[in-house]
Amino acid sequence: MLKVPDHQVAGHQACDGMVGPLVDDSGHFYKPLQNSERGSAEVAFYTSFSSNNKIPNHILRFFPLFHGTRLIEASDGSGLHPHLVLQDVVSSYHNPSIMDIKIGSRTWYPEASDEYIQKCFKKDRESTSLALGFRISGLQVHGSKESGFWKPDKKLIKNFTAKDVRLILRKFVSSNASADSGVDPDCSFASTVYGGSNGILAQLLELKAWFEDQTIFHFYSCSVLMIYSKDSVSKGRSSGAEVKLVDFAHVVEGKGIIDHNFLGGLCSLIKFISEI
Amino acid sequence: MLKVPDHQVAGHQACDGMVGPLVDDSGHFYKPLQNSERGSAEVAFYTSFSSNNKIPNHILRFFPLFHGTRLIEASDGSGLHPHLVLQDVVSSYHNPSIMDIKIGSRTWYPEASDEYIQKCFKKDRESTSLALGFRISGLQVHGSKESGFWKPDKKLIKNFTAKDVRLILRKFVSSNASADSGVDPDCSFASTVYGGSNGILAQLLELKAWFEDQTIFHFYSCSVLMIYSKDSVSKGRSSGAEVKLVDFAHVVEGKGIIDHNFLGGLCSLIKFISEI
Repeated sequence: MLKVPDHQVAGHQACDGMVGPLVDDSGHFYKPLQNSERGSAEVAFYTSFSSNNKIPNHILRFFPLFHGTRLIEASDGSGLHPHLVLQDVVSSYHNPSIMDIKIGSRTWYPEASDEYIQKCFKKDRESTSLALGFRISGLQVHGSKESGFWKPDKKLIKNFTAKDVRLILRKFVSSNASADSGVDPDCSFASTVYGGSNGILAQLLELKAWFEDQTIFHFYSCSVLMIYSKDSVSKGRSSGAEVKLVDFAHVVEGKGIIDHNFLGGLCSLIKFISEI
Repeated sequence: MLKVPDHQVAGHQACDGMVGPLVDDSGHFYKPLQNSERGSAEVAFYTSFSSNNKIPNHILRFFPLFHGTRLIEASDGSGLHPHLVLQDVVSSYHNPSIMDIKIGSRTWYPEASDEYIQKCFKKDRESTSLALGFRISGLQVHGSKESGFWKPDKKLIKNFTAKDVRLILRKFVSSNASADSGVDPDCSFASTVYGGSNGILAQLLELKAWFEDQTIFHFYSCSVLMIYSKDSVSKGRSSGAEVKLVDFAHVVEGKGIIDHNFLGGLCSLIKFISEI
């Protein structure tokens, strides 16, 4: 039984006649291969990554599991289409709060075409990418049974300033998060979700240590997903907060050089979160 | 008694009728204020930096001491010209080996004019800045009494590839450094100069820790100088290896954001050096 995912916050979505991802009820996420070289680049990354024995075990958990590719009926009913079969990283959460953060002040790789570079450069400059080293690409925050999810409009997210980003990172861990700009976020879940030895900050620091050393891949236009469930936190249980990396259509070989673009952006995000 | 410095490896030099820096015999370095806003920007930086009490003591030592500005006769004899009076960071060394490394994959700041951005962008792309997060701007390596200094031509340095950079960082700490590409650098000073608790690597890591936290300044187009004296090392004494930051004509306010561009490049340099 394939269906459109409930909790997708960024990227191409299955709506308006577009082909989008699908999920099944056994925790798989089916991502349609994009046309042109992007789709094959992402398959190539997952294939190379999965078979690389130089990735430490504690780093593997930041990546969705890869189960190959499969031809399945596209979400728009237009016939069979090749899909990446990945782990559905939010399937184990009830009412997950999710933020998708694209890392790097630069989302293009040096070998890209001038046209592509100009397009990305414009987006990086108009968003917070250039200034902060990252930009928020999407988010949903679960409020309560009554209020449901707060999920700001894509256009709104596109225009986030540095100040907005600071506020949103606070709202993300607040019990009173809403579109209302008059409400001061209480950050009541900050210590559980961001803090602690299993919290998001600890996980980001682990990733950072790996990025200071690894020279295998450069992750352009890749996102950090931050996921947690407010239900668990409210019940006094662990937040189950997790960091995952997603979107590898623009990963290139590192050639013995660290990914200083990703690392710089990641350090900037860490600083923002550590200040909350 | 002012004279043209013996050991300048990068930047504007007092030759060909150009105004360049001067030194005196009490350890001062006189840097002519550049025209336009660059000169005043550098004065503004030193003034602001010197009076900022949030800079930790162990970080202050990475910056040349600032002694204000002074009107002195320009190096080309064209009359009085305003100069920055700085500490001459190499005056205490005998036959210093020096490398000037411009940090950051991007040498322009987001608020710069399009024309300036395009100019810098081209240089960053043609040099190793974009790929490595830093580029070598100049160097001199002392060989022996007989061979004197090896100081590659500026044009040669401009065309350094990633592979060249790796080689030069090895040559810099070798007893057999020379222009001869057939000679394999012996790296015989690597453990003393790069390594150890007072070595260059330890100093760069100290700087890195500060850059992970500081949000006061963004250092565009700023250089790390690495200095040591082979004479001392050969005699079994400490290398006196020092790291200094220089060139602050393009420092801008950090506005609460870390300098992820500098930090990323610095981490990349650290990785290169740690592999030697």
